Amino acid sequence: MSNPTGFLAPKTPSGKSAIVPDMPWYYSGTLLTAEYRTDPANVAALLPDGVELADDDPGAVALVWADWQSCSTDGAELLDPVRSQYLETFAVVRCQKDGVTYSRCVAIWVTKDFAIARGWFQGYPKKLGSMAVTRVFNVGKASPRLSPGAKLGASLAAYDHRLASLVVTLREPSETNGFVNGHAMLHSRWVPSITPDAGNSLDQLITMGGVDAEIGETWVGDFELELHDSPWDELASILPVREHIGAYYREIGVTFNGGTLVEDNSNSSV
Amino acid sequence: MSNPTGFLAPKTPSGKSAIVPDMPWYYSGTLLTAEYRTDPANVAALLPDGVELADDDPGAVALVWADWQSCSTDGAELLDPVRSQYLETFAVVRCQKDGVTYSRCVAIWVTKDFAIARGWFQGYPKKLGSMAVTRVFNVGKASPRLSPGAKLGASLAAYDHRLASLVVTLREPSETNGFVNGHAMLHSRWVPSITPDAGNSLDQLITMGGVDAEIGETWVGDFELELHDSPWDELASILPVREHIGAYYREIGVTFNGGTLVEDNSNSSV
Amino acid sequence: MSNPTGFLAPKTPSGKSAIVPDMPWYYSGTLLTAEYRTDPANVAALLPDGVELADDDPGAVALVWADWQSCSTDGAELLDPVRSQYLETFAVVRCQKDGVTYSRCVAIWVTKDFAIARGWFQGYPKKLGSMAVTRVFNVGKASPRLSPGAKLGASLAAYDHRLASLVVTLREPSETNGFVNGHAMLHSRWVPSITPDAGNSLDQLITMGGVDAEIGETWVGDFELELHDSPWDELASILPVREHIGAYYREIGVTFNGGTLVEDNSNSSV
Amino acid sequence: MSNPTGFLAPKTPSGKSAIVPDMPWYYSGTLLTAEYRTDPANVAALLPDGVELADDDPGAVALVWADWQSCSTDGAELLDPVRSQYLETFAVVRCQKDGVTYSRCVAIWVTKDFAIARGWFQGYPKKLGSMAVTRVFNVGKASPRLSPGAKLGASLAAYDHRLASLVVTLREPSETNGFVNGHAMLHSRWVPSITPDAGNSLDQLITMGGVDAEIGETWVGDFELELHDSPWDELASILPVREHIGAYYREIGVTFNGGTLVEDNSNSSV
Repeated sequence: MSNPTGFLAPKTPSGKSAIVPDMPWYYSGTLLTAEYRTDPANVAALLPDGVELADDDPGAVALVWADWQSCSTDGAELLDPVRSQYLETFAVVRCQKDGVTYSRCVAIWVTKDFAIARGWFQGYPKKLGSMAVTRVFNVGKASPRLSPGAKLGASLAAYDHRLASLVVTLREPSETNGFVNGHAMLHSRWVPSITPDAGNSLDQLITMGGVDAEIGETWVGDFELELHDSPWDELASILPVREHIGAYYREIGVTFNGGTLVEDNSNSSV
Repeated sequence: MSNPTGFLAPKTPSGKSAIVPDMPWYYSGTLLTAEYRTDPANVAALLPDGVELADDDPGAVALVWADWQSCSTDGAELLDPVRSQYLETFAVVRCQKDGVTYSRCVAIWVTKDFAIARGWFQGYPKKLGSMAVTRVFNVGKASPRLSPGAKLGASLAAYDHRLASLVVTLREPSETNGFVNGHAMLHSRWVPSITPDAGNSLDQLITMGGVDAEIGETWVGDFELELHDSPWDELASILPVREHIGAYYREIGVTFNGGTLVEDNSNSSV
Repeated sequence: MSNPTGFLAPKTPSGKSAIVPDMPWYYSGTLLTAEYRTDPANVAALLPDGVELADDDPGAVALVWADWQSCSTDGAELLDPVRSQYLETFAVVRCQKDGVTYSRCVAIWVTKDFAIARGWFQGYPKKLGSMAVTRVFNVGKASPRLSPGAKLGASLAAYDHRLASLVVTLREPSETNGFVNGHAMLHSRWVPSITPDAGNSLDQLITMGGVDAEIGETWVGDFELELHDSPWDELASILPVREHIGAYYREIGVTFNGGTLVEDNSNSSV
Repeated sequence: MSNPTGFLAPKTPSGKSAIVPDMPWYYSGTLLTAEYRTDPANVAALLPDGVELADDDPGAVALVWADWQSCSTDGAELLDPVRSQYLETFAVVRCQKDGVTYSRCVAIWVTKDFAIARGWFQGYPKKLGSMAVTRVFNVGKASPRLSPGAKLGASLAAYDHRLASLVVTLREPSETNGFVNGHAMLHSRWVPSITPDAGNSLDQLITMGGVDAEIGETWVGDFELELHDSPWDELASILPVREHIGAYYREIGVTFNGGTLVEDNSNSSV
C-alpha cells in the first residue's frame, strides 16, 4: 500500500491536501521597508547562543511590509487567487556566525495559513496578523504615483491590537532596497519534544534565501513609524526606534527553492 | 448647542465617526468583468414596477470584480490603508425608464463597512462577501502580465458558501470595457417603515454615476464562469449564463459626487 | 409581471436574497455591560436637535457587549449558524423628548452584515468591528463560572485599532441589568439626498424596543475599562469615563417586531 | 548573555512573544460529532507506513466540531478573550501500532494561529478554516435546548470553499460521545529538510491525549452531513460517508500536558 504524500501535512494519497506544495515557490510583490537603528543590546538579546552581533552597524533593523502574490510550479494558485495572495510584516536584524554575516527575521506576521507553513519550514517565527499597505495604481486620484513626495501608509495588528503604523514619503529612485534584509537568512528551526521539559526534538540553524530575483521600481524616502506592544506581541519594547536610516519601496519577484543546514543541535531521542 | 454632524451616522460633534465622510469620493482600481446573456425574463423579474427591459440585448449581464483603493478629499484613508482598500463583486443589467437606458446593479458584495454604507446611500444592494482577484505585478513569476493568453482568476463567497469562480484569458487590448455597465445607474433606495407592513418610509428611484473617469490599460478576452446559490444568496438561479459575450480587464480611476432623484414614492408618514 | 420582493434589498422574485428577512427577529444571548458616568455635556453633544438630556443622572452611559444567536420565524439561520451568530458592542445614553425618557444608542459595532442591515433599519448607527467576550462554560478550567470573584473580559477593535478593553469581576446575583439601556430606544433614521448638500431624503425619529424578554442569570460586579479613539472612530473622546456605576452579566432572550414613528422631518422631494 | 526564551518561536528575552506559552493548556468547550463509516481502504490510504487499520470497525470516522475557550496557567487569555477562543473541525480515524489501538487525526481546520501552533507541536495537521456551530443558550427563541428533537447545525469552509455542512437532531442523553475519538492519539510530526528532496529532519510518531477530563451534558442523535472537496482540501473524496453511526453533543473540559515519543525516524543530519 502506498504511503500518503505531501510536502507538509496533511498527507493524503493524492498529496493535494498538503498545506504547502513542493518547492520551488514563486513570489511577485512589493516591499515597503523602514530601516532604523535600535540599541545593539536589543538585537543581541534576540540572538540565540552561538549567533553574534554583526560587526558593522549592529543595531540596524528593517521592518518590512510585503504585499505578495505567490504560486507553485503549476500556477494553480493564480486561478483561485484567495489561495495565492497574502501580506506579511517582518522585522529583520543582522548577525554573524563563523565569520559570515547573515540577515535574521526575529518577528513576522502573515495573513494566510500556507504562508505560516512555509515560514515555519524556513525558520521564520510566523504568526497571523492583519495588515494593509497602500498600493500604487496607474490611474485615479485614490493612489500615490511613484514620484517625489508620494506618501504610502502601512499597518500591522494582531489579536485586535495595533502593533505598528508606518507612513513613508518617497524622495527619489534608488539603486538599493536598504542593507539589513540583504544577506542570506540565518534561521532557527525549533520543535520541542512532545514530553514536557525534555528539550528540542528539532533544533537546527539553517540558511536560505530567494533566488532569481527580478527587481522593478525602487525608491528611497523618509518615514514616520509608531510601534506598540500588546499582551501577546512585543515590537516597541524589543526593537525601539533610536535613529532613522531610510525607507524604501521596491517591486520584486523572487523564487524560493530551499536552503542549507548550518548546524544541528536536535535531540531526536526526545 | 450645536447638532452632532457627519455625512452618515454615527454623528458626533467632530463628525469624525461618520461611517462615510462627505463626498466627493475618489477611486483607483482595476475591474475584471464577464459579460454574458441570460434569459431576458430573468432580468425582467429583477426590475421593480415602472422599470422596463432595455430595448437592445435585454438579457445582457455584467458580473464585475473591482479591486479598489478609495479616499475622500483629504486623502487620510491612504495613510491608514486598511480604511481605504476593498473588493467588490457586482451583477449589472440594463433597463429603461421614460425612454432612457440605464445600467442597474441587482446584486453586490463588498469587503468593508464603509463600502456598504456608500452603497446603500447610492442604492446599491450591498452585502458583505469575501473576494479575491488575481493581480498584475510588473515583476516575478507569480503574476500574469497584460499579454495575449494571460489568465486571471476571481472568486466570491458569502457566509462561507462559494458563489462564483471566474477565470479570464486575455486576448488583446480593447477600446471598451463592455457595454452593460456603461450607462448611468438607475437605483432604488428603499427603507421600510419601522412599523411592520406599513410600506416604505423611503422609496426613491435615483440615477448616478462616476465622473472624471481616467482609463488605463484595457484588455478583452474569454472566460469560464461558475455560479452558485446558497441558502442566503441567489446568483446561479437568478442570472444563469446562457451565452458568453466577453471578458474585460481595465485599470480605472473615477470620482463619485452624487446623483439625481428620478422618482419619489416615499411615504414619510410611516 | 410580479415585483421582486424582500424585506430589504436585494429584492428578487423569491425574496430569499434580502439581507434581512421579514420581522419578527429572535435573539438569544448574553450581555456584558459596564455602566459609568461621563460629563453630561458629552452626552448632550451627541443628541440631535429636539432631543434633550434625561432629567435623572444625565451623564450615565452603558457600554454593552452582546454575544448573540439570532434567527427569523422559520429558524433556518440556526441550521447554518454562520448566518445566525454575531457579536456587537454598543454605547447607550439616556435622553428625553416630549417628557418621555428614552435610551439611545450613540455608537455601535457589529460583526455581520445582516446585523448592520437590521440596525440601520432600526436607527442604530452600526459599523463593523471585531469583538470578543469571555464565555461561561459549564465544565473545564478555561472558563469562569457565575460565582463571586469570577472575571470576564471583552474587547472591541475597528480597522485594526483597539477601541475598548473591559474586565468585569462578578460580585453577586442581581435583579437588574443596570438602568441606562432599560428604556424604549429613541433613534434617528437618516438618509441624505443623493444630491450633494440637499438635505435628508429620510429624517425620522422612531422608537422601538425588544418584546417578550426572557431573563436568565443576572450578576452585578465591578469593572476596569480602557477606551481609545482611532482616526476613524471616537469612543474615549466622546464618552470618557468619569465615575464607575457597575458592571452586569445577563443571559437574555428577546424578540424584535418593529416600532413606532415619533417625528418625521424627511424631505422626500430631494 | 541570556538566551531568548519561549515555548515556541518567536523567542525573546521575556518569552512573552511565543505563539504558544508553556504547557499545561486548559480547554473548556463543546463538541458536536458525526460518526460514520467509510470504506476501510480509504482509512488505510491515510495511514503512514507502520501504522495499521484498527481490528474493530476499521472504517469508522468521527468528524468533530469543537467550540473552545482555552488558556494557560495564568489564565491571562481569558481576560483578552480574542486570544482564548477558537473553533476547529477535525476528522479522526482509528488505527493500531504494535498491537495498541489509537485515534488519529487525518484532517483539521482551526480559526486561530495559536491553535495551529499547538496542533503542529502535537502532530495535528492543522490548517486555517472558517467554522460555525449552533450554540445552546439558556433563554430565548433563537436557540435549541438540550431536549429530544433539538437541531444544531455546523459548517466548515477553507479558502472560501464550503467543505462540510452538518445538521444534528438530538434524541436523548448519552453515556458516551462515540468511540472513534476515544483513544490516545497517534500522530506524526514531520519537518522536511530545508534542502530539497533530502528527507525529513524531524519524523516522529508520538502519542498524546487530554487529561483531567470534566464531562458535562452529553446527548446522542442523528445527523445529515454534506462533504465537499476544493482545489486545496480533500474531505468528500478521502472520507466519503458510506453508513451513519450516530451524532453526539458534549460539554467538555480537558487539560493538555504533553505526550510520549513512540518512534523516531528523523534524520537530523539533513
